[in-house]
Amino acid sequence: MGTTSGTPNDVVVRPQGEAETLPAAVSQVQLNDGFWADRVARIAKKTIPKIDRMNEESGRCDNFRIVAGKKTGKISGLYFNDSDIYKWLECAAWSLVHFPNADLEARIDEVTELLAAAQLDDGYLNTFYQGQNIEERWTRFRHHEMYCAGHLIQAAIAYHRTRGKRRLLDIAIRFADHICEVFAEDRNRGVDTHPEVEMALVELYRETGERRYLDQAIYFVDARGRHDLDIIEGPAFDQEYHQNRVPFRKLERMEGHVVRMLYLTCGAADVCTEDADQGLAAVLQALWDNMSHGHLYVTGGLGSRRETEGFGRDYVLPNRDAYAETCAAVASIMWNWRMLLLETDRKYADLIELTLYNGMLSGVSVDGERFFYENPLASDGGHQRQDWFECACCPSNIARTLASLPGYFYSTSTDAVFVHLYDNNEAALVLGNGANVELQVETNYPWAGRIDITIASTGTFGVCLRIPEWADNAWQAAVNGTDVASHDLQRGYLRIERSWASGDRITLDLALPVRKLRAHPLVQENAGRLALMCGPIVYCVEAIDNDAEAESLYVDTAAPVVKRPQPGIDGAVVIETSGWAVQPHVSWDDTLYQDHTAGTTGTRGEEQRITAIPYYVWANREPCSMSVWVHHYSER
Amino acid sequence: MGTTSGTPNDVVVRPQGEAETLPAAVSQVQLNDGFWADRVARIAKKTIPKIDRMNEESGRCDNFRIVAGKKTGKISGLYFNDSDIYKWLECAAWSLVHFPNADLEARIDEVTELLAAAQLDDGYLNTFYQGQNIEERWTRFRHHEMYCAGHLIQAAIAYHRTRGKRRLLDIAIRFADHICEVFAEDRNRGVDTHPEVEMALVELYRETGERRYLDQAIYFVDARGRHDLDIIEGPAFDQEYHQNRVPFRKLERMEGHVVRMLYLTCGAADVCTEDADQGLAAVLQALWDNMSHGHLYVTGGLGSRRETEGFGRDYVLPNRDAYAETCAAVASIMWNWRMLLLETDRKYADLIELTLYNGMLSGVSVDGERFFYENPLASDGGHQRQDWFECACCPSNIARTLASLPGYFYSTSTDAVFVHLYDNNEAALVLGNGANVELQVETNYPWAGRIDITIASTGTFGVCLRIPEWADNAWQAAVNGTDVASHDLQRGYLRIERSWASGDRITLDLALPVRKLRAHPLVQENAGRLALMCGPIVYCVEAIDNDAEAESLYVDTAAPVVKRPQPGIDGAVVIETSGWAVQPHVSWDDTLYQDHTAGTTGTRGEEQRITAIPYYVWANREPCSMSVWVHHYSER
Repeated sequence: MGTTSGTPNDVVVRPQGEAETLPAAVSQVQLNDGFWADRVARIAKKTIPKIDRMNEESGRCDNFRIVAGKKTGKISGLYFNDSDIYKWLECAAWSLVHFPNADLEARIDEVTELLAAAQLDDGYLNTFYQGQNIEERWTRFRHHEMYCAGHLIQAAIAYHRTRGKRRLLDIAIRFADHICEVFAEDRNRGVDTHPEVEMALVELYRETGERRYLDQAIYFVDARGRHDLDIIEGPAFDQEYHQNRVPFRKLERMEGHVVRMLYLTCGAADVCTEDADQGLAAVLQALWDNMSHGHLYVTGGLGSRRETEGFGRDYVLPNRDAYAETCAAVASIMWNWRMLLLETDRKYADLIELTLYNGMLSGVSVDGERFFYENPLASDGGHQRQDWFECACCPSNIARTLASLPGYFYSTSTDAVFVHLYDNNEAALVLGNGANVELQVETNYPWAGRIDITIASTGTFGVCLRIPEWADNAWQAAVNGTDVASHDLQRGYLRIERSWASGDRITLDLALPVRKLRAHPLVQENAGRLALMCGPIVYCVEAIDNDAEAESLYVDTAAPVVKRPQPGIDGAVVIETSGWAVQPHVSWDDTLYQDHTAGTTGTRGEEQRITAIPYYVWANREPCSMSVWVHHYSER
Repeated sequence: MGTTSGTPNDVVVRPQGEAETLPAAVSQVQLNDGFWADRVARIAKKTIPKIDRMNEESGRCDNFRIVAGKKTGKISGLYFNDSDIYKWLECAAWSLVHFPNADLEARIDEVTELLAAAQLDDGYLNTFYQGQNIEERWTRFRHHEMYCAGHLIQAAIAYHRTRGKRRLLDIAIRFADHICEVFAEDRNRGVDTHPEVEMALVELYRETGERRYLDQAIYFVDARGRHDLDIIEGPAFDQEYHQNRVPFRKLERMEGHVVRMLYLTCGAADVCTEDADQGLAAVLQALWDNMSHGHLYVTGGLGSRRETEGFGRDYVLPNRDAYAETCAAVASIMWNWRMLLLETDRKYADLIELTLYNGMLSGVSVDGERFFYENPLASDGGHQRQDWFECACCPSNIARTLASLPGYFYSTSTDAVFVHLYDNNEAALVLGNGANVELQVETNYPWAGRIDITIASTGTFGVCLRIPEWADNAWQAAVNGTDVASHDLQRGYLRIERSWASGDRITLDLALPVRKLRAHPLVQENAGRLALMCGPIVYCVEAIDNDAEAESLYVDTAAPVVKRPQPGIDGAVVIETSGWAVQPHVSWDDTLYQDHTAGTTGTRGEEQRITAIPYYVWANREPCSMSVWVHHYSER
C-alpha cells in the first residue's frame, strides 16, 4: 500500500508508484498571520456556514431527509446535488484541523447520521435515484452517481484523517464496495460521464490498504473511449466533451469539458503515483504540455468555450468571454499537485501558485460569501459574484481547497524537504528516512520577496526551495548571512544540504519587479496589449480607479511604474503607472473605421495615472468595467 | 396613394410622405456584361432552380399539397417554412424581368395554384396551423403567421409588377384583408414577433391604393413595446430580443435579433415614406447612427451575438465569432435603400454598396449553389458554405436581392437622376416632371475607377453622381472632356445640371488606391490589426495563397502594395504586399506569455509575399483559414 494524497493527508507511507515526494499533512503545517492565514480563516468563519445554510435553503439536505423517510415531499434540484453536501462535509472536515469548532463537528455528525439513514442496505446512496426511479440506477451514466460517490469518499477520508471518526468513512466504504460489486458483475457496464470517483478510489486505497479500490480506479481510467457513453443531449455534448473519443492512453490534447478532463487526469496521476506499472506518466506529461502551451489563461484560468464549459482550440483565449470556471482552477491545482509529487519540477508548483493567487482566488469575494462560477479576464461590469447557483459546484470546491491549503506547502523525499509555497507558517515534517524536520517561515510574500526560514531541528538533510520561473536570474539565497554558492537549480529547486543546527536561518530574496507580459502572437485577443504581473500576482484595471472604462485605457510602456500598498483593497499592493484613455466619441467622429495612418493623437485624453489592482480582488466594490490585458503604446 | 418601393417596383407615382426620390423600376435598368450582370445571371441559372429543388426535397412544397388535400401525410419542418416558398416566388418573379423563362413562369403559376388550393375561404393561409391546430391560429404570435403573410404579399406584388398576373396578388390580398379584419375585431390582439408584414402592407398599399393596408402597417409598427409578446423560450430571448422592450418611437439603439430589428426599421421607413405625419424620420436616423457607429462590421455585416442572432454591445465586434447573418446583410440593404429614398445622402448608398460587395455577396458561393448563413470575418477553415439549411431563410433572401438588383441603381426626383451604383448598364428612366432620361454606363468598376456615362436624351435635368466617401478628395469629373468646375457635393452627390444633348458624355474618375484601415480603439479584437480595402471591396487573407495560417500573418505597412488581376478567383483583382508569418513553435519555446520587450524577431519566418483576395470569394477553394483583420507592423 502506498500513500500520496491529492487532498493532503495525515498518513505518510512510501508509495509503490512513481512519486518522488510525499505531501505534508494539513495538520503538520500551521499558517501564521499573513496572506493566506487571513483568507483561510474567512473560509472557516464565513464560507463554510454560508454553504451549509444554502444547502439547507435550497433543499439539498432535505433530499436526504426525504429519502431517509424523515420528511415528505419530492426530491428537488439537479441530479448531482448530493455532491454539494459531500463537498461541504469535506471542507468542514479540513477546516477543523486549524479551527476547532465543536458546533461544526456536531453538525458534521448530524449530517453523517442523515446519510446513514438514507443509505440503502446494499450500500447505494443517491437521492436523485432513490427519490424517484431506484430501479434505473446504474443505467444512465450521465447522472453522476459515481461522481457523487467520489465526493462522499473524499469527504469521509478527510473527516477520518482530521478527527479520527469512522462513521462517515464506513458509509463511504459501503458505497465503494457496492460500486466494486456492480462492476465486478458486468465489467462493460459503463463509466460515469463525469470523472471524480477515480481519484477518490485511489485515496480510499491509501486510507484502507484495500487493493481492489485501486484496481477499480485503474479500470475506470481505462474504460473511457471504448464504448459510446450515455451522454447529455445537444450537438456540443459529444463523446469528446465526455473524454470518451479515444481511450485515455491515446489522448494527446486536453479536450472536452474542462473540469471533467482535469478530474480524469487527477485520477490517472493518482493511479500513476501508486502503481508505476500503469505507465501513464508520459500521457500525463504530454497533456500537461498541451494545456500549458495552448489553453492557459495568464491568470491560471482554463476553459475558453462557454457553451461546453470546455477547452477550445489552441491559442483561442477570449478575455470577456473566458469561461475559466472556478472549479477548473481548483481542478488544475489538484492535478498540478499530483504531477508535482510525481516529478519535483517547479513548473507544476509555479502553476499551482499562479492559479491559487489569481484564477481560483477570484472565485470568492473578499467577504467570503459571494462566488464566481466564471472568471473572465475582461468585463463591462455586468459580471458579478453571486450568493449561490442552481449548479453550485464552485463555492464548496474553493472552500475545500483553501481549508486544506496548508497541505500544499511542503512535500518530502527520503532525505529532503521541498518548500513549494511561501507564507508565514510553522511546519513539523517527517522525512522518508524517519527524521523529523521542524521549521518556521517568516515573510511578507507575495508583496515582498524576502523569505526567512528558520530551521528548528538538528541533522543532515536537504532543504529544497522553489525558485519561481519569474524570479530566474533575480534572486539570492544565504544561510546565516553567507551566500549560498551554487545557483544550480534542480528542475527549478535550490537544494541546500548541510548539517543543520537548530536556529540556522535561510534567507531567500526574490526580486519583485513589475513585469509586463505579452501573449503569443496567435492569441488574437491580446494583440497590442500587455498584462501586468508582480511576483505571482496578476493585475487588472478597474474603471473605478481610473475614471475611464477599463477597455479604453492605454498604458505608456515607457512610463515609470510604482507599487503602493492599498490596505483598503483587501490589503493589496496596487500598481501605478501612466497612460491615457480613448475618447471614443471625440475625434473618431463617431466612425468605426479610419485610415490606419490617421494617428491616435486625436483620440486620446490627457495623460493620466493608471492604477491596477490584483485580479483576485476585482468586482469587490461598485460594479464597473475590468480588463487584465491592457492596450499599450510607447512614443519615447 | 404614393409609391416608393422597398423591393424595386414598376409604378412611379409621387408619394405623400417624406421621400426625396423614387426608385427606378427593375425593368428600367438593363445590366450589361460586368461585375453584377454575371452574378445576377448565376442567380437565374443556378440559384433559383436550386432553391426550388430544395423546397421540394425538404417537404416545404408538400406542406401546401397536404393542406390542399392533394397529398397525405404530416406537415413537416419549421413553423415559418411557408416563407421559403414565398421568397422563392419573389426571386423567380424578379428574375423574369431580364431572364425570360417560360418554364420558370409555368412553375410559378403551378405553385400559385397550389397556394390557391390551400388557402382557406376566409383568406387565411399557413400550413403550420392549417396542418395541425387551425383553431389556435392568431394566438401564438411567435409563430410567424404575419411574417409569412408578408413574404406572400411581396412575392405577389413582384409577380404582378413583372408579368402583370393577378392570380397570386389576389391570394395575397385575400390574406391581407383577413389580417385587417382579425385586427379590426381586436386591436390589442398582438403583433408578430418577427416584423416583415409592415413593409409588405405598405407595398400593398402602393400597389392597390387601399389606405387600410398602410393604416394596418402603421398600427403594427406602433403596437410593439406596449404588451408582453408571446415569445420563444430561453433567457436570451426576452422582450428586447423581439423589439418589444419599449414602443418603436422610444428606441434609441439597435437591439435584439438583427433581422427582426432591421425589418422593423424597413417597415417604419416605408410608413415614413408614405405618410409624413407619422414623424418617424428622427427615430430612424438615431437608430441608423447607432448601427453605423457601434455595430457595423467593416464588411457591412451586422450581428455579433451568436446566441441570439442579435446586436451586441457597442464596439463588441468579434471576428471569428461574428454572426453577420446573410439575411442581416440583405435587411441592411433594404433599410438603407429606404433611408436613401427618404434622404439622398451618400452615407446610405455607400453602406448599400459596401454590404452588397462584401457582407452579402459572401453569402453565396461562386457557383451560386452553396450558401453561408453566418459570415464571420475570420475562420480556421471549419466554416464552409452549405447546400441548404433547416432554417433556410438566407438563400432566397440573397436571390431576391440580386434578382432585383437593377432596381437599386437609380432613383429620380422631379428634375434629376441620382446614380447610386456603378456598373455597365443602360437605363430608361422617368423624372418626376415626366421627362424621359436615357443613359448608358460603361466601366470596369469596382476593379477600375473610371466610369463613362453617355446621355442618350436631350433636355435640361440634373445628373447626380454618388462620390463614395472613400474617394473624397481623390476624384475628377468631366463632361465631354471638360472638367466639372464645382466640387461642392450635396450630401455626397455631385450634381451636374445642364442642357444635355444626346451623346454627351460624363467621365467620372474615382481613385482606387489600396486603403489600410484600422478599427476604433474600443473594438478589442482589432487592436494591432488592419483591414485592406480597395474601392468598395474588402479584402481578406486565406492560408491557401500564403503558405501560412491566416491568423499568423503580419503585414509590413511600409512595404509596397500592388494589385493584380487573378481571373481564376472569380475574375477578381487580388492584392499583394510583404510581411511574415509567426512561427509559433520555434522561438516562443512553446510558451504562451513572455516579457513584452522580448522582441518579435525570433518568432517570425522569412519575409514573404502576402496575397489578399476579395472577402466575397473566400471559402470557394479548399477549406483553409481566413482573416479580414491582419496583424501589422512597420520597422522602416
